[in-house]
Amino acid sequence: MAENGMKALEEKHHRKAFGLAAKDTSGILSPFIFSRRANGDNDVTIKILYCGICHSDLHSAKNDWKGTVYPLVPGHEIAGIVIEAGCNVLKLKIGDTVGVGCLVGACRSCEKCVQHKENYCPKLVFAYNSIDIDGKITYGGYSNIIVVDEHFVVKFPKNFPIDRGAPLLCAGITVYSPMKNFELDQPGKHIGVVGLGGLGHVAVKFGKAFGMKVTVISTSPWKKEEAIKSLGADAFVVSSDAEQIKAAQGTMDGIINTVSAKHALLPLILLLKSEGKMIMVGAPEHPLDLPALPLLLEGKILAGSCIGGMRATQEMLDFAGDHNIAADIELISTDYVNQAMERLAKGDVRYRFVIDVGNTLAEA
Amino acid sequence: MAENGMKALEEKHHRKAFGLAAKDTSGILSPFIFSRRANGDNDVTIKILYCGICHSDLHSAKNDWKGTVYPLVPGHEIAGIVIEAGCNVLKLKIGDTVGVGCLVGACRSCEKCVQHKENYCPKLVFAYNSIDIDGKITYGGYSNIIVVDEHFVVKFPKNFPIDRGAPLLCAGITVYSPMKNFELDQPGKHIGVVGLGGLGHVAVKFGKAFGMKVTVISTSPWKKEEAIKSLGADAFVVSSDAEQIKAAQGTMDGIINTVSAKHALLPLILLLKSEGKMIMVGAPEHPLDLPALPLLLEGKILAGSCIGGMRATQEMLDFAGDHNIAADIELISTDYVNQAMERLAKGDVRYRFVIDVGNTLAEA
Repeated sequence: MAENGMKALEEKHHRKAFGLAAKDTSGILSPFIFSRRANGDNDVTIKILYCGICHSDLHSAKNDWKGTVYPLVPGHEIAGIVIEAGCNVLKLKIGDTVGVGCLVGACRSCEKCVQHKENYCPKLVFAYNSIDIDGKITYGGYSNIIVVDEHFVVKFPKNFPIDRGAPLLCAGITVYSPMKNFELDQPGKHIGVVGLGGLGHVAVKFGKAFGMKVTVISTSPWKKEEAIKSLGADAFVVSSDAEQIKAAQGTMDGIINTVSAKHALLPLILLLKSEGKMIMVGAPEHPLDLPALPLLLEGKILAGSCIGGMRATQEMLDFAGDHNIAADIELISTDYVNQAMERLAKGDVRYRFVIDVGNTLAEA
Repeated sequence: MAENGMKALEEKHHRKAFGLAAKDTSGILSPFIFSRRANGDNDVTIKILYCGICHSDLHSAKNDWKGTVYPLVPGHEIAGIVIEAGCNVLKLKIGDTVGVGCLVGACRSCEKCVQHKENYCPKLVFAYNSIDIDGKITYGGYSNIIVVDEHFVVKFPKNFPIDRGAPLLCAGITVYSPMKNFELDQPGKHIGVVGLGGLGHVAVKFGKAFGMKVTVISTSPWKKEEAIKSLGADAFVVSSDAEQIKAAQGTMDGIINTVSAKHALLPLILLLKSEGKMIMVGAPEHPLDLPALPLLLEGKILAGSCIGGMRATQEMLDFAGDHNIAADIELISTDYVNQAMERLAKGDVRYRFVIDVGNTLAEA
């Protein structure tokens, strides 16, 4: 009887969920049944329709960055529909088309939170592999539902293609936020985008929508056509070609560097105007060689940036809606996820895999 | 007759000068007679009284950075008296106590010049080993006189001890300018100063005068007493001591990094608060290891900075006058310069050698 009572209480406070989880460092994803917290007064429960596959998901699934707690349910580019709303929820209602990104919690009271930079709150809670407010590990968007405080939920603009919108919740805000913070959003300025992947291709779109000159910088000469013709970049520079670097030297107000592999910083620093800014949003595992003198002589800036705050994320989605910006994606079914991960490891995707969770995730 | 005429013309347009020059990569300085341009309409001629010995002088004398043209007359921390003023000179008059730093020319019309950042003008002319407006190589302050456009001359405040003021023209502005530009001049903020040499010790003084908490960061534990007792720093961290770094982790709004030897960036990055800024003003010859992830996760900034503009230099001198800030120096006679250079190479100076040019430089 006591046992049954506990079970009932447990059920009352939790909500059954299912999805895909990595169970060990192979990173292979397989069906997983777990529980979400019951919908709290400030929470909404979201039926997940789409979830983008970010490179972080792959790194986390394989424990590349250490610290992975298995089973791991990845996914922080989540788009879906509100199916339940707590009594204190103000900005959302059942039926709203919404997104959840990398952040699902923060202290809400520290200096950074007050500045709407929850992404730098020391107590931030990530969408997966993080300790949630209820003390349990968070599980991400490769799953049927998610329960999130409304503060960390953003609304998609009307008629937004949310399958192509899901990747904006991580890839989009990761490039949009530093473009705004470092004044790399001004018409007529020249921005370089290093790496033409999930983040880079969206950065090109934002840059053009801001009215900037956009140059794609890549080690892959064959990407020139897609950069210019498909994405609308103005120019293309092969970073390993000293002559091309020389020709473009000192021309860029800023660079968004999305590369997460080891790479040479010097040619990129040379491309900047004096007092130009290179923002690192990719995270190479091993240290990069930093030549200090070229940074000094022309007062150049190198900054790291990590996703963005909730206010900026909503602003980014609204801007994307106004300018018809969405990710270019390959929509896949849930049973293709492991193959997609393999292809992603080889960089074989243009530009983001998105899982069609709503139509293809079945309870095992 | 024609030959004599040419010679007379030459003499009319030039002014005999003498000083000390390095003649080859030994870097050894010996007497040297040369000519300065005649005082132009916008120029002042300065009788040099004091000249600081900057580490750059040593590097240049030995051609460490390549590009040295011999004979080289070093010196860009120049203090003296105006002895001639051109007809267009407005802000200076004969008898004024003035300073000349690293810059003696710039285009005056580019974006950077208009922003009072002549230090980032692509056409800037350095005080020595640079091509001057008359097409000749510039010679620095280890000499009896110098002719400079008044725009690049600053006035010392009244009663300033100009022997101790000379080093402010390079060491002082090099730390003051980024402290102002990166908002590291605000009361209550916490600034770290890495390296307690010519630049570092002045940075500590400016930090305290701005009302900040100042922590000196050094590899040399024995510098703690002088940092705190003599210079007034609030705290001291040994950068190679992991426990001390951990204790101070995430506490600093900014760091002025004056170290020009290869060193580890990671412990310094850890000391910064999120969105904290480390400004590099020392120029290590070889690339440093840059760990990207710690920079990213907390949105930290790493910027190079090179001296400062003329308006900021005057403002710095005025601020120094108001707050009794001057360099701690060892005043030496001209015949001690080579020994001083040897000691400087070993870091054996507290904190700046200044040559008593006025009293000890004699024509060979």
